[in-house]
Amino acid sequence: MRKVCVVIGSRANYGSIKSVMRAVQAHPGLQLQIIVAASALLDRFGSVVDVIEQDGFTPDARVNMIVEGETPVTMAKSTGLGLLELPTLFELFRPDVVVTVGDRFETMATAIASAYMNIPLAHTMGGEVTGTIDESIRHAITKMAHIHFPANQGAADRIIRLGEAADAVHVVGCPRIDLVSEIINGEGSDTDTEWLDREGVGGHISTEKPFLLVSQHPITTEYGQGEAQIWETLMALHELRMPTVMLWPNIDAGSEDVSRGMRKFREDYSPEYMRFYKNFPVETYLRLMKGAACLVGNSSASIREGAFLGSPAVNIGSRQDGRERGSNVADVDHERAAIVGAVRRQIERGRYSPEHIYGDGRAGARIADILSTTSLHVQKRIQY
Amino acid sequence: MRKVCVVIGSRANYGSIKSVMRAVQAHPGLQLQIIVAASALLDRFGSVVDVIEQDGFTPDARVNMIVEGETPVTMAKSTGLGLLELPTLFELFRPDVVVTVGDRFETMATAIASAYMNIPLAHTMGGEVTGTIDESIRHAITKMAHIHFPANQGAADRIIRLGEAADAVHVVGCPRIDLVSEIINGEGSDTDTEWLDREGVGGHISTEKPFLLVSQHPITTEYGQGEAQIWETLMALHELRMPTVMLWPNIDAGSEDVSRGMRKFREDYSPEYMRFYKNFPVETYLRLMKGAACLVGNSSASIREGAFLGSPAVNIGSRQDGRERGSNVADVDHERAAIVGAVRRQIERGRYSPEHIYGDGRAGARIADILSTTSLHVQKRIQY
Amino acid sequence: MRKVCVVIGSRANYGSIKSVMRAVQAHPGLQLQIIVAASALLDRFGSVVDVIEQDGFTPDARVNMIVEGETPVTMAKSTGLGLLELPTLFELFRPDVVVTVGDRFETMATAIASAYMNIPLAHTMGGEVTGTIDESIRHAITKMAHIHFPANQGAADRIIRLGEAADAVHVVGCPRIDLVSEIINGEGSDTDTEWLDREGVGGHISTEKPFLLVSQHPITTEYGQGEAQIWETLMALHELRMPTVMLWPNIDAGSEDVSRGMRKFREDYSPEYMRFYKNFPVETYLRLMKGAACLVGNSSASIREGAFLGSPAVNIGSRQDGRERGSNVADVDHERAAIVGAVRRQIERGRYSPEHIYGDGRAGARIADILSTTSLHVQKRIQY
Amino acid sequence: MRKVCVVIGSRANYGSIKSVMRAVQAHPGLQLQIIVAASALLDRFGSVVDVIEQDGFTPDARVNMIVEGETPVTMAKSTGLGLLELPTLFELFRPDVVVTVGDRFETMATAIASAYMNIPLAHTMGGEVTGTIDESIRHAITKMAHIHFPANQGAADRIIRLGEAADAVHVVGCPRIDLVSEIINGEGSDTDTEWLDREGVGGHISTEKPFLLVSQHPITTEYGQGEAQIWETLMALHELRMPTVMLWPNIDAGSEDVSRGMRKFREDYSPEYMRFYKNFPVETYLRLMKGAACLVGNSSASIREGAFLGSPAVNIGSRQDGRERGSNVADVDHERAAIVGAVRRQIERGRYSPEHIYGDGRAGARIADILSTTSLHVQKRIQY
Repeated sequence: MRKVCVVIGSRANYGSIKSVMRAVQAHPGLQLQIIVAASALLDRFGSVVDVIEQDGFTPDARVNMIVEGETPVTMAKSTGLGLLELPTLFELFRPDVVVTVGDRFETMATAIASAYMNIPLAHTMGGEVTGTIDESIRHAITKMAHIHFPANQGAADRIIRLGEAADAVHVVGCPRIDLVSEIINGEGSDTDTEWLDREGVGGHISTEKPFLLVSQHPITTEYGQGEAQIWETLMALHELRMPTVMLWPNIDAGSEDVSRGMRKFREDYSPEYMRFYKNFPVETYLRLMKGAACLVGNSSASIREGAFLGSPAVNIGSRQDGRERGSNVADVDHERAAIVGAVRRQIERGRYSPEHIYGDGRAGARIADILSTTSLHVQKRIQY
Repeated sequence: MRKVCVVIGSRANYGSIKSVMRAVQAHPGLQLQIIVAASALLDRFGSVVDVIEQDGFTPDARVNMIVEGETPVTMAKSTGLGLLELPTLFELFRPDVVVTVGDRFETMATAIASAYMNIPLAHTMGGEVTGTIDESIRHAITKMAHIHFPANQGAADRIIRLGEAADAVHVVGCPRIDLVSEIINGEGSDTDTEWLDREGVGGHISTEKPFLLVSQHPITTEYGQGEAQIWETLMALHELRMPTVMLWPNIDAGSEDVSRGMRKFREDYSPEYMRFYKNFPVETYLRLMKGAACLVGNSSASIREGAFLGSPAVNIGSRQDGRERGSNVADVDHERAAIVGAVRRQIERGRYSPEHIYGDGRAGARIADILSTTSLHVQKRIQY
Repeated sequence: MRKVCVVIGSRANYGSIKSVMRAVQAHPGLQLQIIVAASALLDRFGSVVDVIEQDGFTPDARVNMIVEGETPVTMAKSTGLGLLELPTLFELFRPDVVVTVGDRFETMATAIASAYMNIPLAHTMGGEVTGTIDESIRHAITKMAHIHFPANQGAADRIIRLGEAADAVHVVGCPRIDLVSEIINGEGSDTDTEWLDREGVGGHISTEKPFLLVSQHPITTEYGQGEAQIWETLMALHELRMPTVMLWPNIDAGSEDVSRGMRKFREDYSPEYMRFYKNFPVETYLRLMKGAACLVGNSSASIREGAFLGSPAVNIGSRQDGRERGSNVADVDHERAAIVGAVRRQIERGRYSPEHIYGDGRAGARIADILSTTSLHVQKRIQY
Repeated sequence: MRKVCVVIGSRANYGSIKSVMRAVQAHPGLQLQIIVAASALLDRFGSVVDVIEQDGFTPDARVNMIVEGETPVTMAKSTGLGLLELPTLFELFRPDVVVTVGDRFETMATAIASAYMNIPLAHTMGGEVTGTIDESIRHAITKMAHIHFPANQGAADRIIRLGEAADAVHVVGCPRIDLVSEIINGEGSDTDTEWLDREGVGGHISTEKPFLLVSQHPITTEYGQGEAQIWETLMALHELRMPTVMLWPNIDAGSEDVSRGMRKFREDYSPEYMRFYKNFPVETYLRLMKGAACLVGNSSASIREGAFLGSPAVNIGSRQDGRERGSNVADVDHERAAIVGAVRRQIERGRYSPEHIYGDGRAGARIADILSTTSLHVQKRIQY
């Protein structure tokens, strides 16, 4: 029985690998090991570890590895802290394969630990193109991974052009879409409105009326501009004055800038039409995405899950540059008037037809099957 | 004036960047910053930091970052330790560009720290192909670097195929060859024989007679086989019984295995024809390479400097698989009879004509010039 | 010229050592080195490093060393992170003596680094008795320190009973009191009210009317009870409904519990009579202490500076158990009715006469003089 | 059932706690948890972890935490590395009490991690007096420990004078003496001579003739003098020219100095009467102590186990200053003539009568009993 160790470092991470964890847990030839780390342990980011336990998973270890500060310095140090701790745990758990997601610093720590310890590394969400430092990190991780699970053929082609062996690249779709599919095909939940009122701070939000769902993160390579960037968005929202579900940013260099802008806006404008949330259960968030009149900000979700859901979206700034997108996305700069105009046009246009650019909802099962049967090896060689 | 920070982590590192350091130091538009780290600080590896100071350089900081053990676990942890410390120093020194060499764990720590801190990273020796974990690490570092200084056109082509922007790739030759050229064109040194007798342990070595120069390192992806591998080489040397200059291995996962084999051999066979060294001044080593009847082992020097020097070499095992090589190299497996045969054939054949596969001896000056003029930026985007 | 390195880890730390830094800077026989670390670097705790620079000091290095989480696990890890970084900086700066303050985890990291590196360690605020883990940490640091600067004779006696050499123990008073003295003897500042309105969040506070100054921190050995404890205080304040200057807690295991309680209270009760602050310039805070009708909470300032100022104070819970106190302090349990009663009695009673229990305002100069002349040695021996 | 976690960091540590581990394992009310760390994992120090497994114990985790270098800087950093890792493991294993031994840096890391995590800490070998940095570290650890197991009444008195509660101090004897007692009362082992010939390097040693057992470690507070110090001892041994069992030094700041001296001596003098060992099975070592004509060096074993065994011993230098000792010990300075004279007098004098200064051989069982019944609490308060 192969031991598959999944390292989860954030709420986004968890949503992106949950269907894989379920499929691994259910697979007779696989044993699931779970390490919960980084911001997934922090109250400030909604204690994702509690959600993981509520979902029926049992973490095998917890690793506090965030060096506080959310600056370029602390992101580098947090990677280092992960690299000091994960080897001890990998030695303890002796996984046959490690699974890591995306392009964050805990992903990098996981990748390097696996690489040096000669543990085959499987990587999801490789081969995509974005802005920010994530772009460099993601491709660097691809060069250390042994098994690749890109979301679509474009990403797969890019991985192969990066010199990876074609037979190690498996187009499976993005596991996040598995959850989306499940929610859409599941029954609607009346409890979400209760949840929205109970959690978060700010005004009451009615999802009966057309509402906006906003999520804007700092851009690590534009460090220091986060406050000005969010301010343009907030001024646009203040002109629109629609019911607005507003998320605090991810932990990252520059988060504090974005958060500071949001706090000032809240103090100065007391926007009664807006409610602030640290975190959402994945299901609630996806239902909000499906229900929103328009998604606003620079989250990848607008592009990835948005395509599958056909949700109108306004993508602001450079953070998602280069990411393949469907017709549901309108791109604008950090400029309040442009944001207002784009949101109004999207709302008028209404919902889009679903597009399967990032998967069809069956990625988790495919990944578990491949992990149970693929040959595992560690020596790599560039394919040119 | 641009501040150029060089991070040196081992004796090999230093030899590979010394001519660049000199050129940066001499350049009116550049200021040199030096961080000496990892095994370059350790007595066990010859206190390279002392050599650096004797050469007229002043280290700006020293970072002990080796987690002892030389296992896969400790290599990963050492990377982590570097990642915790280098950001503090980069923040202190505020370099405009960081220069890192090759594919070792301290190189990886340097690369990630620079990447997250938005400091442009220049990388030498990228784009080459080898065996071991170095292969993955090297290409991953390329994906984080902003300025590439490959040794030859083949390496440059590979870097561009990895999606790097062509105008960021500068074929300059390998700075190690600069030293080789200087030594060759310099006057011979009579003091080397004194040095050979004073340092090291074991029998007296006369370099008047045909002698062998042996350097064999562990292969991280073949962890656990190092003792058996060195044993084949030692048995071959014992059959040849020629004067032999023998190096202890680099610090790396598996070094202890190789060292143990060497200690046992020494205890059991008391080979009076062999002398053991921890470290060499770069100049002494190169003169030995030039003078040796045959180079033996799996060091990259036999291939890189060996081509320039025309030194007959026997390369053992997979460590240098994929590396471009000249006609001076004969490849054999870890098999004592094969090694004996290859060495005898090479000695009979004698010296080869120089080949400029890894540079012409002017890499340092070229790199300093480019560092002083190239536009510095941090956002990267894959070129396909 | 002796190099004196001060390591500052928090806003409280800085207030406790600032007069020493000034005196060292002014002393012809001493050179000041400053390392700013831990929460003193964090925006969330008011970026104390900026205050330090505004005060005319130049930090020699900054060390991010807080592992985020504010749990027992992360306090231990933060100590570890400090211990990995401080040795590199001590090696770089080569201080003749290191000065550390009090009993926090960054103090412990500083002490151990100095001890192992054979650097004489001077310690302020040793020999005092309190509750929480600080009690163990403080006395452990005393056992590693070489020069002791206790605030009063009681503390000095305790240090000597701990087996320290009497001639290494200097009763100098607490350097915090130096600042208190200076403020009191300086002119009043009209700008404070502007500051109060500009900074913080919540209602407008008039310091013309009798007002409360509240500061309550978690108790690390009562981890998990912080929210219930602050709630009793908040309910008492809500009954009193006086103008209230309210501080967020220090970073420590359990801070998040206290903060959560404060956030909930603010959301649920919208207390227009209360304003929340992350941090104060030391001067502003002391003037508030002098002006307040009553100090409330469990801060040591109520006891230490409070005695010198004669400020009526209500001390809640066990955090200050064992600390020597003047007549200005009334002790109560975490019980809302008891808190209300005690505050009302203190306000009725009015200001107390100053008591010099923690110093007379000239500690900084005394410490600088001793540091410039005392013999420095590192080998210690228990004195019994 | 109480979970008792023992952290083992070196070969000396293991010998000092093995009888406690056996007793805990055998106790119906206790469950043993074992973390093997630091030099106990290193091949260079004899892979003590293998011995632990051969003895029938199963390590629950392994923590590589030595930062290589053996300098003051790396000792501090190694403590930090331990502090980063142990909290993760303590959180995973949730021990009811942690047991730590003595005064080394891994002991300090264990103590601080326990203290901050509110885990009761039991400490053996506290209250003793020695030279070197160990003196400061030991008493600092006492100030963080909750349950004290001193070896004798003098040590217990000192712990109480340090302000510890008398009912937390249990005089049980030193667990090392349990092993000594067992060996002495067991049957002699003929296999030791085979072992002596098979292991180590150097000349053949006959234990039939009067032989010396030498163990000399660096003194951390006399850093830099180790080579000169060992040289005096080696010159004395060279004059005595008796069969000599010679140990390499413990890992500690300065070990490399001592080792270098030993390597040079071996190269220069080829002492055929001497054999060098990295490590001994505890049993073998104790039988050698019992059989030796004289113990030489600065190991605490000469004093502690030596008293129980009545072995003549020559203690050199300041490392054991202040430690209570029996009549079997003669103290001399680092001076070759003095060493030769003292050894000759001791050999002439012959064996001494056993003295129970450090225990009677039943410490392990006593400690297990107390750990199973004592009340566990974490808040401490100085007792004056």
